[in-house]
Amino acid sequence: MPSISARSQAAPASPIRRLYPLAVEAKRKGKKVYHLNIGQPDIPTPEAFMRGIREAKIAVLDYAPSPGIPEALEAARAYYAELGFPLSSENILITIGGSEAITFALTVTCDPGDQVLVPEPFYPNYLGYARLTNVEILPLTTFREEGFHLPPRQEIEARLTRGTKAILFSNPANPTGVVYTERELDMLVDLALKYDLFLIADEVYREFVYEGRHKSLLSYPEAADRVILVDSISKRLSACGARIGMLISRNREVMAAAYKCATIRLSAPTFEQLGFVAFMRDPQRHAVVAQMIEEYRIRREVFCEELRRIPGVTFRKPEGAFYVMFGLPVQDSEDFIRWMLTEYPGQETVMFAPGAGFYATPGRGHDEVRGAYVLNVEDLRRACAILADGLALYTAALARR
Amino acid sequence: MPSISARSQAAPASPIRRLYPLAVEAKRKGKKVYHLNIGQPDIPTPEAFMRGIREAKIAVLDYAPSPGIPEALEAARAYYAELGFPLSSENILITIGGSEAITFALTVTCDPGDQVLVPEPFYPNYLGYARLTNVEILPLTTFREEGFHLPPRQEIEARLTRGTKAILFSNPANPTGVVYTERELDMLVDLALKYDLFLIADEVYREFVYEGRHKSLLSYPEAADRVILVDSISKRLSACGARIGMLISRNREVMAAAYKCATIRLSAPTFEQLGFVAFMRDPQRHAVVAQMIEEYRIRREVFCEELRRIPGVTFRKPEGAFYVMFGLPVQDSEDFIRWMLTEYPGQETVMFAPGAGFYATPGRGHDEVRGAYVLNVEDLRRACAILADGLALYTAALARR
Repeated sequence: MPSISARSQAAPASPIRRLYPLAVEAKRKGKKVYHLNIGQPDIPTPEAFMRGIREAKIAVLDYAPSPGIPEALEAARAYYAELGFPLSSENILITIGGSEAITFALTVTCDPGDQVLVPEPFYPNYLGYARLTNVEILPLTTFREEGFHLPPRQEIEARLTRGTKAILFSNPANPTGVVYTERELDMLVDLALKYDLFLIADEVYREFVYEGRHKSLLSYPEAADRVILVDSISKRLSACGARIGMLISRNREVMAAAYKCATIRLSAPTFEQLGFVAFMRDPQRHAVVAQMIEEYRIRREVFCEELRRIPGVTFRKPEGAFYVMFGLPVQDSEDFIRWMLTEYPGQETVMFAPGAGFYATPGRGHDEVRGAYVLNVEDLRRACAILADGLALYTAALARR
Repeated sequence: MPSISARSQAAPASPIRRLYPLAVEAKRKGKKVYHLNIGQPDIPTPEAFMRGIREAKIAVLDYAPSPGIPEALEAARAYYAELGFPLSSENILITIGGSEAITFALTVTCDPGDQVLVPEPFYPNYLGYARLTNVEILPLTTFREEGFHLPPRQEIEARLTRGTKAILFSNPANPTGVVYTERELDMLVDLALKYDLFLIADEVYREFVYEGRHKSLLSYPEAADRVILVDSISKRLSACGARIGMLISRNREVMAAAYKCATIRLSAPTFEQLGFVAFMRDPQRHAVVAQMIEEYRIRREVFCEELRRIPGVTFRKPEGAFYVMFGLPVQDSEDFIRWMLTEYPGQETVMFAPGAGFYATPGRGHDEVRGAYVLNVEDLRRACAILADGLALYTAALARR
């Protein structure tokens, strides 16, 4: 039998996927599982988006233009213009989710063997996109005690190599919730200029900021030809299944190359582009987003407050997104989550994402988990109570092992 | 400024995209352009598909399961079962168009620098997928005079190298319309077994067969672990913009690797999966497809009949798909098409896809074009009359140059 490729063997199988069957089994036995493990909002997708799909007038569902249908490009342009960033539609590609935008960005900036510096912990699929495109991730470790903010400039410079082509980061960040300060972003821009690097900025959580102010990398005219922005409607429209994202750059060469990537895969799905267009034409859309962000603001307060009461749980309150990456008084958080799904005695249990899956550096994150506050306040409180109880029982059970 | 990657520079910009602005300009000047250049059917998308989208009941548009929603996997399973191929849903992945299925197949079977043998002329995006995944295409030239059927076994064997991991082909084929005989397929299977190769079979035109019989590579149990099938609803449902395709294999290792590729890009678009499910539940669906195929059968007759009357046009009537790759009495078919769009004096003109874009071997195809019979019979006759007139005028104009 012919063997499969090394790159597909090297692609990560997420640890969370090892745990999922246990959650399914727990539910089969009648247990309720509070899923704080996944970045899937529970907020209803806006009606305007759904209406745009339902009311689409299409006789022949033909290929959409590869860079996006003109109305969707115009909707994206209008969105950035409102944020204060005047772009032309030539600076924008509609992609199949933020996922495709990241794959395009890595493909366009790197050849096989090239490296991308990524602050860790990071969104685990970054490693997947990188492995499948034969790009190497250079992790830049950040720490819970520092709220996962960036290390000093010299430490970043020390990590860079000749083969480093870009710095990839999310801001606000998944899984840490960190929102980088203006000083941190100034430093990244400075490094990109000094070392001739691209900056791939994943800003899909742009609106999810509760403290301080989010600064987009589009704010740096001096880095206009270095910045590749990755964006998506998944989170801000609670439409993860739409698969509508964007790649933005003011670098013409980058856009020409990304445009080729887009033509080769033909088009992004038409109906969901029309949903996005309809949402952007809804006069209520700002209120819809503001109300959603307010809900997350409240959830964050409750979640952090409840976590803080649990003995041994450590974290710094994050500024944005809808995640908290927190420390647990255990040695192996994946083992703890497995125990919660299989041995915890209650009729309800809780699931988090094990921390190690967010690090590329071996040995890191084993005492951490990521919690996503994507449930209502009452469920969040209940989930934290279960976590507290579970930790006490697990620790006692370990002592008896 | 940092430079973009070599692979994105090497990715092909389709010659047809150089010609498009000329077609747009011609239309701006009031000319009618008959587009026989693109594989975009004009047949309305079935109502059942559209209803499945319109009537979807979704409150939160969350990520669909990465391998496909269970109902879509079941619909695909039922489709293959009807064809006589019993598969389990573990053998099927719903992909974002056939495009993604091919990218997954190349990623799973090849590492950078590995080679894939492809009969040429071939679908130009194959070169795009290959360049972006750093796979090398070894073209295996086939000839118009032989109806683009495969060369003898020894010629194929002579092309294989140590780095050849797979043979990729479409059947029925784009752009040639060839449908491989059982003997040709037997030979490919035999070669795959002897040389330990994967067979990546793009069968998206499976239903579009007008002469002889299409044999799927799923018919070969002895090659079950070599075959990766690429499929799509784009053509048979006239739903190119749906971006719903499939990757099928009975090789567990391949499916596990492809599954990882799928989880990394999260999910295929939900609404279009539901459209596919609704179509597959429609009792009228066989009649809908049969009627469409009948329409193409008539168009093929008319198109071939009309082409045959044009002096200097040469081809063998193809057995399937909806293309004819034919020879023209010109030295540079791209120049001829450019002339038709810019200098042809009529109020109407016609556009074909230049032949060279379908070949990887330099110098091939310059006297050929691909015509797609995706227009109604009357328009096809008119387009051929314009072609005949244009050829006469172009030849005369060239003589004066």
